[in-house]
Amino acid sequence: MSSSSATPGRGEKAEAAAAKPPMREALVAAAFQLFLERGYEQTTVDDIVTLAGVGRRSFFRYFPSKEDVVFPDHERCLADMTAFLATSGEEQDHEPVRRVCDAARLVLRMYAENPTFSVQRYRLTKQVPGLRAYELSVVWRYERALAEYLRRRFSGRRDGTLQADVIAAAVVAAHNNALRSWLRSDGQGDASAEVDHALGYVQSAFGAAPPPRPAGGSPDGPADEPAEDVVVVVSRRGAPLWRVVQEIETTLARD
Amino acid sequence: MSSSSATPGRGEKAEAAAAKPPMREALVAAAFQLFLERGYEQTTVDDIVTLAGVGRRSFFRYFPSKEDVVFPDHERCLADMTAFLATSGEEQDHEPVRRVCDAARLVLRMYAENPTFSVQRYRLTKQVPGLRAYELSVVWRYERALAEYLRRRFSGRRDGTLQADVIAAAVVAAHNNALRSWLRSDGQGDASAEVDHALGYVQSAFGAAPPPRPAGGSPDGPADEPAEDVVVVVSRRGAPLWRVVQEIETTLARD
Repeated sequence: MSSSSATPGRGEKAEAAAAKPPMREALVAAAFQLFLERGYEQTTVDDIVTLAGVGRRSFFRYFPSKEDVVFPDHERCLADMTAFLATSGEEQDHEPVRRVCDAARLVLRMYAENPTFSVQRYRLTKQVPGLRAYELSVVWRYERALAEYLRRRFSGRRDGTLQADVIAAAVVAAHNNALRSWLRSDGQGDASAEVDHALGYVQSAFGAAPPPRPAGGSPDGPADEPAEDVVVVVSRRGAPLWRVVQEIETTLARD
Repeated sequence: MSSSSATPGRGEKAEAAAAKPPMREALVAAAFQLFLERGYEQTTVDDIVTLAGVGRRSFFRYFPSKEDVVFPDHERCLADMTAFLATSGEEQDHEPVRRVCDAARLVLRMYAENPTFSVQRYRLTKQVPGLRAYELSVVWRYERALAEYLRRRFSGRRDGTLQADVIAAAVVAAHNNALRSWLRSDGQGDASAEVDHALGYVQSAFGAAPPPRPAGGSPDGPADEPAEDVVVVVSRRGAPLWRVVQEIETTLARD
């Protein structure tokens, strides 16, 4: 995925973020060292630039505020997610719920790239209400990106926007449930497997299950994921058993 | 529902909120008059208390900050929701998804009590980023209240916390989709029917349908809602029919 399709208006900042020059990383490292030593509130931008050995202007070139240095990769990840959903082809769009689940995995990947940093930030965010609020606004933007994609996909459906909003919220909640469980375990365990499991729950509630894969798997999925094409039968409890069986047979025959 | 079971720590403020003395209402009215005339950012707390004819201390007795006067009833509503979920009996707890949908309707009721005010606030919130952030934090607290209830109900389930978080998020998203649609229509239309429809989508994805009602309906639901107690069976498509039938029989027998 390229950052070249970053959302308009980010301009130079987006390029700087994508290139990740050493100065930007040095600022993040200095900031976190001080946050952990002194606490977030007790650390000023001046403290950070002094430790990093750069000027104030350099800080604000990369980060609009002190809060932004705590979440240095979300803008890039949001741009990646938007690009990922914008470049969906016909095959991917055929299963929109699966597609937004894959988009959510981009966030997990960002966290899993650097477990130590992610765990430190998780603890910091829990302690500082301002950071919690910042995080909520970031989560909201991810959710909107997923919902906007689904709204486009469901534009012909009755209740399309409702379904899009609900599914996007469910995907984000499932992803974050698994992500936070992994962060609480200090980044031990298999984050990817936990997120897959959580997103599987959402897919089972809202989406078609993945279609059978050719042996060896496809490029965007592991080879050993079982093909779990399912039949869902909903029947009134009072219905006689033969009626339920008839319904199943009809459903199977329809394919 | 009584506000006497407000969450601990709210103390006097909770009572003041529940009693809704004229001074509190006067402050809200003055604040909104100024927000609409001058804009939110251009209005100070001093402006508000001057117009309301009270002292600064009175303002802060009711509202911790200027943002809080924009959302004067959320604390009461959150307390009502918590109390509503805490006092669930065996009958209500039998259908936890339905219960959280009913809890979400308390929020709708608060908005629908005063459509003009709700629509004005909706427009204001869209314009002021700080208020948008405040609203996100309020929405998050509602979602957590629903999720905590579901986590308790699902404590024996495998994936109980995952399911609780996902369903709570879906309920909030559905509620807000309908609420915002109603607010965008300037409070025209039947907000309650829109929310019922939206929550019905979540119930169809996650919850059992409502149980049969006695003729004439129950106090908390309409009489003409059909009794649709259902059995849901999910089966791998490859499974033999006898295996599916066995699963249905087991499910029915378990009740």
